[in-house]
Order: sequence, then C-alpha cells, then structure tokens
Amino acid sequence: MGFVVPQRVGFNEPITLKSGAQLPGFELVFETYGQLNASGSNAVLVCHALSGGHHVAGMYADNPKNIGWWDNLVGPGKPLDTNKFFVVGVNNLGGCYGTTGPLSLNPETGKRYGADFPMVTVEDWVAAHARLADHLGIDTWAAVMGGSLGGMQALEWSLQFPDRIRHAMVIASAPKLSAQNIAFNEVARQAIISDPEFHGGHYAERGVIPTNGLRLARMVGHITYLSDSQMGDKFGRQLCHGEHRFSYDADFEIESYLRYQGDKFAGFFDANTYLITTKALDYFDPAFAYNDDLAAALARAKASFFVASFSTDWRFSPSRSREIVFALMKNRHRVAYAEIDCDAGHDSFLLDDTHYHAVLRAYLENIKV
Amino acid sequence: MGFVVPQRVGFNEPITLKSGAQLPGFELVFETYGQLNASGSNAVLVCHALSGGHHVAGMYADNPKNIGWWDNLVGPGKPLDTNKFFVVGVNNLGGCYGTTGPLSLNPETGKRYGADFPMVTVEDWVAAHARLADHLGIDTWAAVMGGSLGGMQALEWSLQFPDRIRHAMVIASAPKLSAQNIAFNEVARQAIISDPEFHGGHYAERGVIPTNGLRLARMVGHITYLSDSQMGDKFGRQLCHGEHRFSYDADFEIESYLRYQGDKFAGFFDANTYLITTKALDYFDPAFAYNDDLAAALARAKASFFVASFSTDWRFSPSRSREIVFALMKNRHRVAYAEIDCDAGHDSFLLDDTHYHAVLRAYLENIKV
Repeated sequence: MGFVVPQRVGFNEPITLKSGAQLPGFELVFETYGQLNASGSNAVLVCHALSGGHHVAGMYADNPKNIGWWDNLVGPGKPLDTNKFFVVGVNNLGGCYGTTGPLSLNPETGKRYGADFPMVTVEDWVAAHARLADHLGIDTWAAVMGGSLGGMQALEWSLQFPDRIRHAMVIASAPKLSAQNIAFNEVARQAIISDPEFHGGHYAERGVIPTNGLRLARMVGHITYLSDSQMGDKFGRQLCHGEHRFSYDADFEIESYLRYQGDKFAGFFDANTYLITTKALDYFDPAFAYNDDLAAALARAKASFFVASFSTDWRFSPSRSREIVFALMKNRHRVAYAEIDCDAGHDSFLLDDTHYHAVLRAYLENIKV
Repeated sequence: MGFVVPQRVGFNEPITLKSGAQLPGFELVFETYGQLNASGSNAVLVCHALSGGHHVAGMYADNPKNIGWWDNLVGPGKPLDTNKFFVVGVNNLGGCYGTTGPLSLNPETGKRYGADFPMVTVEDWVAAHARLADHLGIDTWAAVMGGSLGGMQALEWSLQFPDRIRHAMVIASAPKLSAQNIAFNEVARQAIISDPEFHGGHYAERGVIPTNGLRLARMVGHITYLSDSQMGDKFGRQLCHGEHRFSYDADFEIESYLRYQGDKFAGFFDANTYLITTKALDYFDPAFAYNDDLAAALARAKASFFVASFSTDWRFSPSRSREIVFALMKNRHRVAYAEIDCDAGHDSFLLDDTHYHAVLRAYLENIKV
C-alpha cells in the first residue's frame, strides 16, 4: 500500500450514546486507501477489533516499521483490492489513537476525560461512522467488514442502516459474548481497576499509568487469542535457560512471551479504552430486544453476508458463527459461510492463510461496484 | 463420615528438596478415616489439588459446615468405603492449612518464612508423604489417589516408590502441563507478584495480604475449572439488575460470581502457597529426564492404574489422560481408563456424578485388602 497518512474529521453536532450520555461533538481519525469512484459505489469500511485502530494498511513515512494491521489483505492486487475498492479504516470513539476518547480533553473541564468518558457501544460506533460516511460522500458501503469486535460492527451496520450496506463481512465473530467470554473480560477489567495506579480512571491527570493492570489484562486476553495447539507447537514446554530455576523469573518460553506481550501493550494502550471496549463487547447482543431470538433480530437486514470462522478459535468458535448463519438462513437472507482450518486460533483472522484469503478474494471479486 | 479431628506430626530429619534447598524438618497436618487393618494393607492416600488440603471428609465439631472436599466419595458405604479402607488426607508441604509452609516460622530467623520458603515439587510432596506413611506404619498403600494436581502425586508415587503403592488412581490429570496451562498459571502468579501488597513475598511479616492479586488469580483459575457449556447453562448472559447499567459494577451474574469466588479465596488462601503450588504444577514432567518419552518414564512403575477424565474438562482434557494411558499400555502395565461424560469441566472430579462414582466404586471394590 506504500506510505499512507491518517486524516482527522470533527463533528460538532452532539451525539447521544446508547447509555443516554451525550458527547458535545467528536473527532474521528481515519485512513483511506484507493480512490472513491464517481458513483460512490466502491467504498469498503474496515472495522477494527479490541486493540486495533485506523491504521489498516500501508506504512508511515516517518515510521516505515509501523505497518497496518490488515496490510496483508488490503492493497493493490490484494484480496481487498484497492485498484477496485476505496477502503476506509477508522479508529472507534473511545479509542486511544487520536479519535475522541478518554485521553482527549473534556471541553467542560479542560482536563482529560479519563473515567468521565462515557461508555460507548457497538451501536454508537456504527452511528459515529455513519457520520464519517456522510462526510466522505458515501451513501452506501459496498461492504463493511471486520474480524472479532470488527465483525460485530459489520453485523450492526446491517441492522442499524440496512440501506447503507450492500455486504456485511463478519469474520471470527459472534452474535453475543458467552458467559466465558464475559468472564475473561471481567478478569481483565478487575486487573486494571484494582491496580492502585488506576485512581478510579483518572490516572492520566496524575501522570501515571496502571501498567500492571494493563499488562495482566493483555496477558489473559492473549491466551484466548491463540489456540492451545498453536501455543503448544510454538512454545510447548521450552525452557528459557534449559533448566528449571526454582524462581519466579520466567522458566518457560511461554511465560517470557506473555510478559513481553503484556509489557509492550501496557506501553501504548490506554486502560480506560480497554475497559470501555470490553464493555462494548459484553453488551453487544442484537437479539436482546428480541427475546433472544437472533433470527427475529436479523430480519430487518438487507445486506448480503459473508461469515467466516476458524477451526481452532475457542474465543469465538465456529459454532458461534453458525448461530449467525442459521439466523440469516431462517430469514432467507443471502449468506456465504466459510469455516477455515487454521491452527492460529482467534488471531487467524489477521493472518494470510491461503484458503482464508482465497475465499475473501473470491467473495470480494464478486462484489459489483 | 461424622466428626473428624486433624492430626499433626513433626519430622526432625532434614529434607532436601528437588531444588537443592533443605528444610531442617517439617510438620504435616493430616486426617484419617476408618481403621488401619492389622496387616496395614488397606491404606489409601488421598492427595489434594491446588487449593485443597487434608480435610478430605467429615466435619469439625466446632464448625459442622466445614465439610471435607471429597466427602461425597469417602465414608462408610461410599465409593471409597471407610468400612474397608483406612483413608489418609494430608496437607502438602508449602501449604497454608497448618503443614509447614510460607506462613510457618522459619527457625533460623524466628519470623515467618514468606518468600524464603523454598519451592517444593510433586516429587518433594511424595517424599514427605512417605515419611507420613512410615509414621503411620503403612509399608504399602493399597492405593494413592487424587484429582488434578492430586493425580500427579498418585502418578509420582508409582515412580518414586514403585513397591509402596499397589494402585495409582489418576483423575482429571495430565502427565505435564501444556503451554496454555502454564500460561494461565503465569497470569495468576503475575497478578500476585505485581500486587503492591505482595512486598516480594514478605507481606505476612508486615501484616498485609496481596488481596487483589490473589483475587485475580482465583478468578482466572476459576474460569479454567468450569466448562464453557456449564458456565453458559448456569449463568449465560443473566443480568444482575435486569438491564445494562453502563458502569463497572457487575452487570452480568457471571461477573458477580467470579468476584465472589475471588474475594472468598483471597480471604483464606496464602499467596506464597499459591505461587509455590502453581510452580509445582508447571515443573511436573516425569518424561523430562527421559527425552520426553513418557512410556520410558513410566516403565519402572509397578502399580495398577485407574485413570479417569471428563468430557468437558478443557484444563486437562481427556486427551491428556489418554497420553498417560497409552504410555502405560506401551509398558504393558495394568490400566483401567474411564472417560466420563460430565458437563462440569475440570471440577467434575469433585462431584458425585453417577457414572463417575460408579466406576470409582467398582474399581475400589476390586482392590484386595
């Protein structure tokens, strides 16, 4: 994709969130790849997952090592081909990469929002991104796509704006979290909230970071992103020093790896954003207002659907994707479903697995623009 | 089993641990149920798992609600029938229920050991319990049994003292931890160690407890003890207050349950014991000295084996038990294996599932005393 430049747009109209809270306005940071055609029919919105952002593809001139998180998918000649599509990546409201969020200044106080930033939901993100679509002159997305939490946003687009999305591509996702999913999120949240440096969410004003909590949150999250078998193949019981050292230093490579991932994450991600995002995951449940009847909830969708899952994903297993597929089929909606054999667990959706990319390419090639 | 009374025995001979560290002596707290017969042929040792102890069955006169953790299994007429067997429950070295451990006074300093208590291994526990067998006049156990970490001890007995154990009963266990198992233990340890109240393991001397860390450790551990399906059936997405509250109070019942379990655990368990015990789990690997050849490692065993696993146990799945079974079969050792359909995940081994107790009863009835 070459060098790309993030853009920023401000919206001054207040937005009322699902919680009832209101923001007086907000800014979104986004990137675009490819060219919007004259009829505006070739736009694809890529929605990010928990820790992702607007930097989907390409690299930055001042930091060529910072490559977009879905760069293997998006670019000229790639499955999401920017010779054909105009691709938009956007950082969600409540994020920590420039979009208005807990680290932004609260216009009412002149201080950072911190814990006063309201909770946002998948529905709120879609509402906010609709304003971005308006701003970019996109009446209808050719497709909205994403993995994990990004897939939930694609699904929500098909429900909140049935006439503004032609294809919803829901990958490695679920129609709602299970009790176990919520449980892992809750451990992560409690790790952050119980860190003494959290200060009730107002750590930034004090110039500190709840590093330990963020680190633990990432460590436990990371375990759920990888498959048991992949972790076994990659790390197994390999020792850092060839022997058991009978200390609490890392004995096994997997310990060292998790600590590294935790430390790295705590160095760049915002704790309040982590909390908000896990709550958005927990709350997402389009069938909630339909007496738990997912088919009834999805009845109003008009998009065509592409749903994909991965065999070793135990965070959002294939059976969770099949729930979506069956609910769509009950409505006689158009749906293509791919269950990909891949060893990499939940994170498979980020990889360029041959079969996975082949079905994505085939589906995207068949979208008319 | 009625009222029982814990007993205590001290050993003044020093014990050299696998780490090379030495304890000048130690005390074990234990309980017994039933009567040792004249030939000493009817003794069964029950080994506990991570947070268990010597209180296997019965209740205490001063606290009748404190019922042993395997009371459904052990007693007159129960599968481990105390009319036939003399059953011994013992609290492991390094524990926090009275056996010498981090909360004990270090004779060298007159202060609590805390972080100075040496790491102990499954091998060390078996060596310590062999002294208890000597003390009780038990030359050979009719059986050594346990679930999870307790099953590892039963397996280790068959290797360290092949002539002192006739039956090894290894339930819901594994021949070694997987990378994922170690990963979860490491998150729990880091939660404890990074708690500012941990004070490098010397919290007791300061009169404080790393409550937050222990609480998080238990929360993440607890998730791995339950099956996804059982958690779904029991909690699903049930709300505490019938609505999403957009706060970090518990929204979902599963959050409230995990917090309760974490708080309860932090109120009675010792953090250093938790650390030591998870390391003992991580280190256990009888095949390590045999070039990862489990069959070679188990060759020296002379016991008959009973191995059982549970269909929904994802901590130590049935495939982990089958590794043990296959390694035993390669040696043409006697082995009975039961794979039990039970919805309760790893914790199934503690329950009185009908089929599970029936096979245990059948196996134990066939042990000659």
